[in-house]
Amino acid sequence: MAERVDLPSPAATLPDRIADELTAFLTQRAGLLAGISPDLGLLAQAARTAVLTGGKRLRPTFAYWGWRSVQPEAAAGEAQLIRAAAGLELLHACALVHDDVMDSSDIRRGQPAAHVRFDRFHREQGWPGSGQAFGAATAILLGDLLLSWSEELFTSAIGCLPPERARATIAEFDVMRTELVAGQFLDMLAQARGAFDPDEALRVVEFKTSKYTVQRPLLLGAIAAGGSPEVLEILSAYGLRIGEAFQLRDDLLGVFGDPTETGKPAGDDLREGKRTLLVALAHQAGNPSQRALLQAGIGDPALTADGVARLHEVLQETGAHERVELRIVERATEAARCLSTGLLQPAAAQALLELAQAAAHRTF
Amino acid sequence: MAERVDLPSPAATLPDRIADELTAFLTQRAGLLAGISPDLGLLAQAARTAVLTGGKRLRPTFAYWGWRSVQPEAAAGEAQLIRAAAGLELLHACALVHDDVMDSSDIRRGQPAAHVRFDRFHREQGWPGSGQAFGAATAILLGDLLLSWSEELFTSAIGCLPPERARATIAEFDVMRTELVAGQFLDMLAQARGAFDPDEALRVVEFKTSKYTVQRPLLLGAIAAGGSPEVLEILSAYGLRIGEAFQLRDDLLGVFGDPTETGKPAGDDLREGKRTLLVALAHQAGNPSQRALLQAGIGDPALTADGVARLHEVLQETGAHERVELRIVERATEAARCLSTGLLQPAAAQALLELAQAAAHRTF
Repeated sequence: MAERVDLPSPAATLPDRIADELTAFLTQRAGLLAGISPDLGLLAQAARTAVLTGGKRLRPTFAYWGWRSVQPEAAAGEAQLIRAAAGLELLHACALVHDDVMDSSDIRRGQPAAHVRFDRFHREQGWPGSGQAFGAATAILLGDLLLSWSEELFTSAIGCLPPERARATIAEFDVMRTELVAGQFLDMLAQARGAFDPDEALRVVEFKTSKYTVQRPLLLGAIAAGGSPEVLEILSAYGLRIGEAFQLRDDLLGVFGDPTETGKPAGDDLREGKRTLLVALAHQAGNPSQRALLQAGIGDPALTADGVARLHEVLQETGAHERVELRIVERATEAARCLSTGLLQPAAAQALLELAQAAAHRTF
Repeated sequence: MAERVDLPSPAATLPDRIADELTAFLTQRAGLLAGISPDLGLLAQAARTAVLTGGKRLRPTFAYWGWRSVQPEAAAGEAQLIRAAAGLELLHACALVHDDVMDSSDIRRGQPAAHVRFDRFHREQGWPGSGQAFGAATAILLGDLLLSWSEELFTSAIGCLPPERARATIAEFDVMRTELVAGQFLDMLAQARGAFDPDEALRVVEFKTSKYTVQRPLLLGAIAAGGSPEVLEILSAYGLRIGEAFQLRDDLLGVFGDPTETGKPAGDDLREGKRTLLVALAHQAGNPSQRALLQAGIGDPALTADGVARLHEVLQETGAHERVELRIVERATEAARCLSTGLLQPAAAQALLELAQAAAHRTF
């Protein structure tokens, strides 16, 4: 390969820098596993696949721009912050691996989920017993490993910052992890209850996405950078709004999205029974026959393409689809307004504005 | 309550001090969850049950005596070390909660396992859908929460020690967590393969128990206390030996133990298909008909009491039971010999000697 002469700006290469940190970390840890037993190559490879296959690297990106809201480009500590931010991606990989076991989702990012890969491996070996049970069990262990590793990478990198800032950043990381589990637990409860409650749906959005995906990563970065209370306030307000817009777009894509772009089968979110704001609003506004269709269809694993099409009609006719689209625009607009105070570093304010637009209007 | 006048010795009240730390931590975290949503009381209560119901507190106890191998009683930092050691108990609670999901074990410490409690809760609420799936999913989340919390309690407590010692202790904790998952993964592989291999069984013992339960906790404590390389060497050698003795005793209790003492149904380890040294040795020494009995019975979930009795005979007649008993005595004797160098603080050497004897001869 030719030597690279012009170093591109950190922002342009951020996903590469994050991927490099993750690759270096996973390679080091694979060595530790290999030292225990060659049989653990399977686990190390599964970790690489879970972490390095696709993904938008949203959380590290927001952590970086949280930092850059306070610090100029290439300030002291930036490399450590990016390494710590890569740790958030390991946390997210854990969440996805465990989520897929919990939901029995077989596809992740257009590829077989971790538990499906382990299941197939079991069958290929011709081992006795249940490949499915083996797949679920080993995926639980893989998630546990990724969760521990996430913290190791995060804490060791942040530990290089001045002690007071390091402590405050780690405290934020701790809250973030608890909120992530709390959000997922509330989501499980909402799904189990089978109710259609817009407030409940929004509370799940708040903890499962707004805080976990945007607000906490932004705050982590800004706290690590020594941001003022005013800056933290702005990022917090922006994060909650854009996080909601992001999740509501995700909900729409999960129902109406193009499978070739989203990597998820059409109607999967409906079959899974996700209690989104979208379906809660449709239920609220629906007439008895529309409500009956929602109640019967949402959460029916055997829902046909025809059934999906009928639910699409209900979501349109009740105005739920439009209301969610409107809400996304409102939140994105409010988020953009938060950025116009002049208190953030200009490059960060610009990047966050672009991220807000991308989150609200993306198609995948 | 009357004021306590005489402070008992730390050793006598160690389990109480650990329980107090755990209770205080879980109460604080329950408050954090309650602030998110009252619905999370269910999760907070499940965490309390998983952590505070029974358990021998082995890992914190070994961590404490690792510390005391170096430091006299009530030295500066002891309170922090005990708080960190309590964090190991949260890690262990995660391992047990996830293990029970992975093995579909319904009983833990004589009580319903976490996933069974959540399953029952789901049924009691009369919710639609599968209570079993809800139970497994929420137990996975509970374990994730306990794993994060374990690290929070451990790291925040150890962080109060001098930085160099804190860093080295946390590095040891990191290795411990990776080895725990590695040991469990190797155990899963051994069980899936369905082979009877004494070497493989011993490797699982080494990582799943010797290191995780004894060696690493001892080393954590000693490193936190600033122990010399010689002291670490002694504790490491002792830990591997007594850990093996402990696990082999556990294997025997899982097969021959009194259910009223062990809290586990008789023969459960046989039905589950655990590839212990005990069954591997029996297979190695068995004649064709004994091997056939082992192959058919081990891992058969429908194994009857009669079937268990027949396997008991095979384990006796092949000499496997006796060989494992002998190996326990050998390891306990070697472990005791490690302690006689005079390099450990006398109180710790005495306590570790007693723990070795208890581990080797316990009946529950």
